Amino acid sequence: MFESAEIGHQIDKATYKREEPQLREALLGAQYELLRQARTAVVVLVNGVPGAGKGETVNLFNEWMDPRHIRTEAFGQAGGDGRPDMWRFWQVLPPKGHIGILFGSWYADPLSDCVTGQDKRDRFHHRLERIRQFERMLAAEGVVLVKLWFHLSKKAAKARFKLLGSDPRTAWRVSTAEWDHLKQHDDWVRASEEALRKTSTAEAPWRVIEGSDPAYRSLTAGRLLLDALTACLQAKSAARAPAAAPAALTAPALDGRSLLAAQDYSRHLGRKRYEAQLEELQGRLNGLSRRLVDQHRSLVLVFEGMDAAGKGSTIRRLTQALDARHYRVVPVAAPNENERAQPYLWRFWRYIPHHGHITVFDRSWYGRVLVERVEGFCSQADWMRAYGEINEFEEQQHEAGAVVVKFWVAITPEEQLRRFEERKNTPHKQYKITEDDWRNRAKWPLYAQAVGDMIDRTSTRTAPWHLVASDDKLWSRIEVLRLLCERLEAALGATAK
Amino acid sequence: MFESAEIGHQIDKATYKREEPQLREALLGAQYELLRQARTAVVVLVNGVPGAGKGETVNLFNEWMDPRHIRTEAFGQAGGDGRPDMWRFWQVLPPKGHIGILFGSWYADPLSDCVTGQDKRDRFHHRLERIRQFERMLAAEGVVLVKLWFHLSKKAAKARFKLLGSDPRTAWRVSTAEWDHLKQHDDWVRASEEALRKTSTAEAPWRVIEGSDPAYRSLTAGRLLLDALTACLQAKSAARAPAAAPAALTAPALDGRSLLAAQDYSRHLGRKRYEAQLEELQGRLNGLSRRLVDQHRSLVLVFEGMDAAGKGSTIRRLTQALDARHYRVVPVAAPNENERAQPYLWRFWRYIPHHGHITVFDRSWYGRVLVERVEGFCSQADWMRAYGEINEFEEQQHEAGAVVVKFWVAITPEEQLRRFEERKNTPHKQYKITEDDWRNRAKWPLYAQAVGDMIDRTSTRTAPWHLVASDDKLWSRIEVLRLLCERLEAALGATAK
Repeated sequence: MFESAEIGHQIDKATYKREEPQLREALLGAQYELLRQARTAVVVLVNGVPGAGKGETVNLFNEWMDPRHIRTEAFGQAGGDGRPDMWRFWQVLPPKGHIGILFGSWYADPLSDCVTGQDKRDRFHHRLERIRQFERMLAAEGVVLVKLWFHLSKKAAKARFKLLGSDPRTAWRVSTAEWDHLKQHDDWVRASEEALRKTSTAEAPWRVIEGSDPAYRSLTAGRLLLDALTACLQAKSAARAPAAAPAALTAPALDGRSLLAAQDYSRHLGRKRYEAQLEELQGRLNGLSRRLVDQHRSLVLVFEGMDAAGKGSTIRRLTQALDARHYRVVPVAAPNENERAQPYLWRFWRYIPHHGHITVFDRSWYGRVLVERVEGFCSQADWMRAYGEINEFEEQQHEAGAVVVKFWVAITPEEQLRRFEERKNTPHKQYKITEDDWRNRAKWPLYAQAVGDMIDRTSTRTAPWHLVASDDKLWSRIEVLRLLCERLEAALGATAK
Repeated sequence: MFESAEIGHQIDKATYKREEPQLREALLGAQYELLRQARTAVVVLVNGVPGAGKGETVNLFNEWMDPRHIRTEAFGQAGGDGRPDMWRFWQVLPPKGHIGILFGSWYADPLSDCVTGQDKRDRFHHRLERIRQFERMLAAEGVVLVKLWFHLSKKAAKARFKLLGSDPRTAWRVSTAEWDHLKQHDDWVRASEEALRKTSTAEAPWRVIEGSDPAYRSLTAGRLLLDALTACLQAKSAARAPAAAPAALTAPALDGRSLLAAQDYSRHLGRKRYEAQLEELQGRLNGLSRRLVDQHRSLVLVFEGMDAAGKGSTIRRLTQALDARHYRVVPVAAPNENERAQPYLWRFWRYIPHHGHITVFDRSWYGRVLVERVEGFCSQADWMRAYGEINEFEEQQHEAGAVVVKFWVAITPEEQLRRFEERKNTPHKQYKITEDDWRNRAKWPLYAQAVGDMIDRTSTRTAPWHLVASDDKLWSRIEVLRLLCERLEAALGATAK
């Protein structure tokens, strides 16, 4: 990967002086056009060997362009607050029209953990594969990645450290860490080469820049950024669309039967038994939530269901058992302007709980494969890739120690109609029923099909779906609480008192 | 993954009788249109639980459509002749316009090795990831995958085995193997679910069919195949094209220096020393080639270089040392009609050597990122994804026990001109020089750029590139032989006599 970056590239000062102003002007122009189009976000990854000019280049980019529309972030080793590793990168993704510069980026930790031997080869490969999926998803969502690797041969690195160290004004740049890195230079090169090769895709290829000559390095980095900006400004559409799409998962089963319709909706629970069981289960859940804090685990709860299925009232019965400092309920509606300027998972990543915390999503990222699919808010290719992206998202949560529990609160169309009528006829419930609800109801078969596909394709061992027949609200609430307690007991490894 | 396929789907006989003739007619029509367009190949994967009707469905497909244009292949456990696992599937890929039905397919071995515990989880995941890359490549090359999984719940499987076993005419269908499978049903389901989820992509999603009712199963399978055929016949273009392409790797370095130009071309060897060293090295190589046979390893040699670089004469010096029964030389020119009807790697997979054998490629799959890139024979997205596909291809060869050695036989433009003139002026060499050679020569800088990118992106630890400066033919031949012997000695674990 580094062969061409060890041949001593350089550019003379006169050329640099001539080229630099033109490059600046072009970059600035492209940046403003990006902002005006507001169609694509550009993320520049800055990685490479110490002493190869990464920091200087980041400074230059900010000097050459308007820094108010550039978000520069530097990353050290991950903190470990119980959120997935990728969480902190999601927090700083630039919105459409903006440029993000990630110094270190999602490559720094996997590489260093590989070189220090903390990660075994399989784990390293797993993390690279995760990165590849992440970047593929970003590209599909219209984010352009410019991946720059600044390289120095071992000889050049040594020469540069000596040079920097010999001048009191630059000696601070070379610490023991840099010399230690040099000792392990070959290990770093081996790991980096592999990482770069395995993550150089057609959508997001790595570009290697020889770092020893500042003029060559700066002009090259600037030129690569400019090329990427120009390419994405000229592209016809921001997202990738497949020319030969496979047949979609849209046809209902030939016998007309669906997973939702096949549930048993006849179950019923009397008020008295409900109240006794509710109290017992809420106590059990409370104990479990304390265990969760003690064990530094977190809990992600997802509630999905048709309109009027009883998601809200079920969530209330559940949160009654929790300490308000430990949970938050996130109601999910149509995305707002800020959220639409980001990949669709962005607004959910924000609320992933840290250690000891609980997030309850009242509707969730599954909107992508439900309402967005049925209403055509995204393309077929978009929602079809979403199953894999969502599984990957939840797997990351699981690996970071979260318990992920998902409920589909299921009602029959007849029961929904009864509840709609009741809402319409009860003054204090009228606000709950809108024209949208009736429109959605008319598309019941399409939603039923989408729900079946969703459950088939995203019910995993670590984050299974629980379908709860809820025509009887009391039975359903108890069932949800019971399933939740069981899942927590299994995950936390002990029966609560 | 199987939730919707355990709810007891079924279709009554009257419906089947009404629907079946229409479906047949539509399938046959679509098959002929596929053949007429000859733009896409369709590969149907038939996998699933024993007793779920896989064999019956394969027979039906052949009955419903014209079997002369269907290639049906069944696969048992891989043989282990030293070729990569994927080799046998490459051999049976249908050409454009045709339908291939793969019974068992590339999923059977990974699944069974996972369930029997022969493969650890990491290995299982690695194989699934390999499959995902393989299928992504097929989709990008215009192959449509129809992945059908035939499922039975444990209860339904048991009932079906009992039913089949009780009738003397069908008892042969249920052997001990089927009952053993049933005992491990839960393990199979767990592994299959994971495999299906991880390989259900937007390009090639799995479709699960409940297998207990023959009418439902047959109509559903036929309908899914018809939908896939219809979608690919209507698609505008066979290959996927990215709407927002990243900036290509086409710009030369800003200082005009290239990896090729940076080599030292001044090295020279006198005739006398050449002849002594040639004899010694050929002897050494001969010994090593015998070791290769003894150790059941294979050798893949790749020679690339500009026209007149001396690839052919170098290869002859090398094969002089080999037993004719052990090697074959594959000269690679522009693909013929059969080869153009397949993914670009297909014609190379054919010649991957088995245990104890050697294949020498005189030009190779690297044409994709050299001539095809420079001449625009494939799109930018195609050659940019090729680096990863080629690395994956060579990694599979390495894992199967092959030693992969790649040479770039490098000459300067001045030396090429000298040789061209010599060929032009020497009657028995005139056949070697054509108009094409002069045309290619005019594009030297583009080729130099492509070679630099190729070496940067495909020189791996297990299959590195060796750049050999060859303005002096004698020095170059000796260097190639020496490097080859060293690589073989390192791989075979001992110094030859």
